[in-house]
Amino acid sequence: MPFSIIFTKTLHLGVSIACEGQAALAGGATAAATWWSSPSWAHTKAAASAETVEVEPEAKEAIEVVEDGEVKTQDAAADDEKDIRPDFEALVLRVQQEICDAISGLDGHKFRVDEWERPNNRGIGKSCVLQDGNVFEKAGVNVSVVKGPLPPAAVSQMRSRGKPLREGAKPNFYAAGISLVIHPHNPMAPTVHLNYRFFQVEDPETKEKSWWFGGGADLTPSYLFEEDAVEFHSALKAACDKHDPTYFDRFKKWCDEYFYIKHRKESRGIGGIFFDDLDERPANSVSRKDLTDREAIMAFSKDCLESFVPTYISIMKRRKDMPFTPEQKEWQQLRRGRYVEFNLVLDRGTKFGLSTPDNARIESILVSLPLTARWEYMHEPEEGTEEAKIMDVVRNPRDWAVDLKELEDASFQEIMAELARRSEAEAEAAK
Amino acid sequence: MPFSIIFTKTLHLGVSIACEGQAALAGGATAAATWWSSPSWAHTKAAASAETVEVEPEAKEAIEVVEDGEVKTQDAAADDEKDIRPDFEALVLRVQQEICDAISGLDGHKFRVDEWERPNNRGIGKSCVLQDGNVFEKAGVNVSVVKGPLPPAAVSQMRSRGKPLREGAKPNFYAAGISLVIHPHNPMAPTVHLNYRFFQVEDPETKEKSWWFGGGADLTPSYLFEEDAVEFHSALKAACDKHDPTYFDRFKKWCDEYFYIKHRKESRGIGGIFFDDLDERPANSVSRKDLTDREAIMAFSKDCLESFVPTYISIMKRRKDMPFTPEQKEWQQLRRGRYVEFNLVLDRGTKFGLSTPDNARIESILVSLPLTARWEYMHEPEEGTEEAKIMDVVRNPRDWAVDLKELEDASFQEIMAELARRSEAEAEAAK
Repeated sequence: MPFSIIFTKTLHLGVSIACEGQAALAGGATAAATWWSSPSWAHTKAAASAETVEVEPEAKEAIEVVEDGEVKTQDAAADDEKDIRPDFEALVLRVQQEICDAISGLDGHKFRVDEWERPNNRGIGKSCVLQDGNVFEKAGVNVSVVKGPLPPAAVSQMRSRGKPLREGAKPNFYAAGISLVIHPHNPMAPTVHLNYRFFQVEDPETKEKSWWFGGGADLTPSYLFEEDAVEFHSALKAACDKHDPTYFDRFKKWCDEYFYIKHRKESRGIGGIFFDDLDERPANSVSRKDLTDREAIMAFSKDCLESFVPTYISIMKRRKDMPFTPEQKEWQQLRRGRYVEFNLVLDRGTKFGLSTPDNARIESILVSLPLTARWEYMHEPEEGTEEAKIMDVVRNPRDWAVDLKELEDASFQEIMAELARRSEAEAEAAK
Repeated sequence: MPFSIIFTKTLHLGVSIACEGQAALAGGATAAATWWSSPSWAHTKAAASAETVEVEPEAKEAIEVVEDGEVKTQDAAADDEKDIRPDFEALVLRVQQEICDAISGLDGHKFRVDEWERPNNRGIGKSCVLQDGNVFEKAGVNVSVVKGPLPPAAVSQMRSRGKPLREGAKPNFYAAGISLVIHPHNPMAPTVHLNYRFFQVEDPETKEKSWWFGGGADLTPSYLFEEDAVEFHSALKAACDKHDPTYFDRFKKWCDEYFYIKHRKESRGIGGIFFDDLDERPANSVSRKDLTDREAIMAFSKDCLESFVPTYISIMKRRKDMPFTPEQKEWQQLRRGRYVEFNLVLDRGTKFGLSTPDNARIESILVSLPLTARWEYMHEPEEGTEEAKIMDVVRNPRDWAVDLKELEDASFQEIMAELARRSEAEAEAAK
């Protein structure tokens, strides 16, 4: 592991359980040196470093909260479907490490790692941050697995979203996931965000469970490079198409809607995918029939998540050493300001996390903010400039994805060459 | 006038009527070249440049909204108290000009001035911004006078605050005020915020009116200079004490509470005063008995507002040319980040303004943000440093004010010498 383990002072923190945005999984914690050694999480550690996930018996546990609020464990055998939580935890921990390795490899700096634990066996987390590196201004990659009683405000919010929770129910929740935000130094290189999570709620009286997946990834460039947009969207489309023909279009649209900065009348970036409350396969799903819905949607999340490293690293290699002017850096800083506005004003996960200061690890929530940002009064780029071009895209979201299936036997270089050819042909046709 | 008048493209904007914070008066507008020439506002222009306010007869108007939503005027003679609105408008416009002159004089750069008007005679405003000057990074000084039907959300919010509004009433409102935020370049120089406003609500059926004043001023240094803190608080205390012996302590405490960044467990700065819903004099008030409550509280607001220029300019003269290191500049940037967090996450006026994007002049609301800001993961200054000193103060608000009354015949220099002497004596006693 390329990580340097640093344990921070004990913090009394809690959990952010809102379901959207990059802060959703910056769960609360008490940092502790006992993280990996906790027996109930041992499977996770083992699985994180194994290629094939072999779930140990003691890991097949569900949660139960007793009267005094301390969390105890319960045999999950009663559940009607296979308990996927150990596999999902293993997945996000393994990919977190792969992402950190890839980012660290490109940058030359190592990640700082903070592992934390919530009191009363309420969950664990691992926050990896690389700050002021050679290539990256700030990269935060968080994993958290949190559980406990669901706060009343969250119960009503979930009921309003159609979750089958009884009026007055005091359900327990479980939430696991990975979230990242990466801000590069070079203004030609895009900021990226990603978040995949699994959520489960159980009524302690009726024992009724509901579960769902949420997540997505979106790109925020300061300058538009069409090949980056095409590559990013096409990779996500390829992951979606492997599972359901309707996913990509639905989730691309949802992404454009979610990352919309209403008060600026512009999107945060050029989109990607965003989904939430995903708890069954559509009728025309092309995913493996031998899987339960839960397993099938986890497999979908896995494919989306695993498409991240090759795509983003490919984009970064093209952009990280490009020359730029001080004016272009200043433009990037203004766009960073918009990123801050979205995250602090609109992102539901961040808002939820900040509104429960005693229960959330604030530093993990706010690691999504850039190292530096700028606000100028009444700034508007001149028509015809590269700055005006990206503004046009964030004000009028476009479709970028191409179908990579036709190219599935091609090498990555061949795919990129084909994408460049198509892009040129389109530009030619537009003349 | 030292202003260069720039009219911007027509914007369809509305009004921010929440009652707290610096965005409260960044009301909506359609920018128009006809601003001062509008006859119903002519008194304001005349009054703004006159020492003694002589209210013209046509200015004595109250507001009435007719069925189609267009605002018409109504003779205010029926009102039981003198209509103070023209005087208050004149006051804030005059002081806005004095502040801009003082800031501009110190900086050497002029303010950009945007005058705007809301459609259907719904209000006017004047936003003055000095950006990237010699001394100031960003200084925004806004005046607005807005009116119209009160949105239902605002009605319930006001009812919950105890305003005597009938259930289901559709009241009209009038809000006038001045707000400013000034961010200097030099990290030794403090950011400052100020806001004074008059609010009136009228039930169109019962004709019942309620009114109140709100406002305050607070200082946000990156480095603590005790004499600045003492001067700022003492000037506000002197203004308060002229009107009521309870005001300063109450409003200082309210300020510490309001500008508290809950998720950071620290205050935005070192405080000042904050008040709202002020609609009657306390029993022990020492203000002029020949004034109505409305006039007396306006006189109080006026004294607070007028204490701003001499105090802040005095502080700035001491700080603006102090030497500083790149590390100190970086610390200032981190503190600016906290300012952004407060304004975007917590400030009620900003939140209200941003949640009604079709109705607010976003650029005037967000002019409160600094030009530049910074966020570092897990940053904590070392014990014993100057950075740790200011953190201690924002985590444990202190009392700074001294009674200037005893020094009332002294010159400003003598007062400052006396304050320095007291400060030294305190430091000596603490040894």
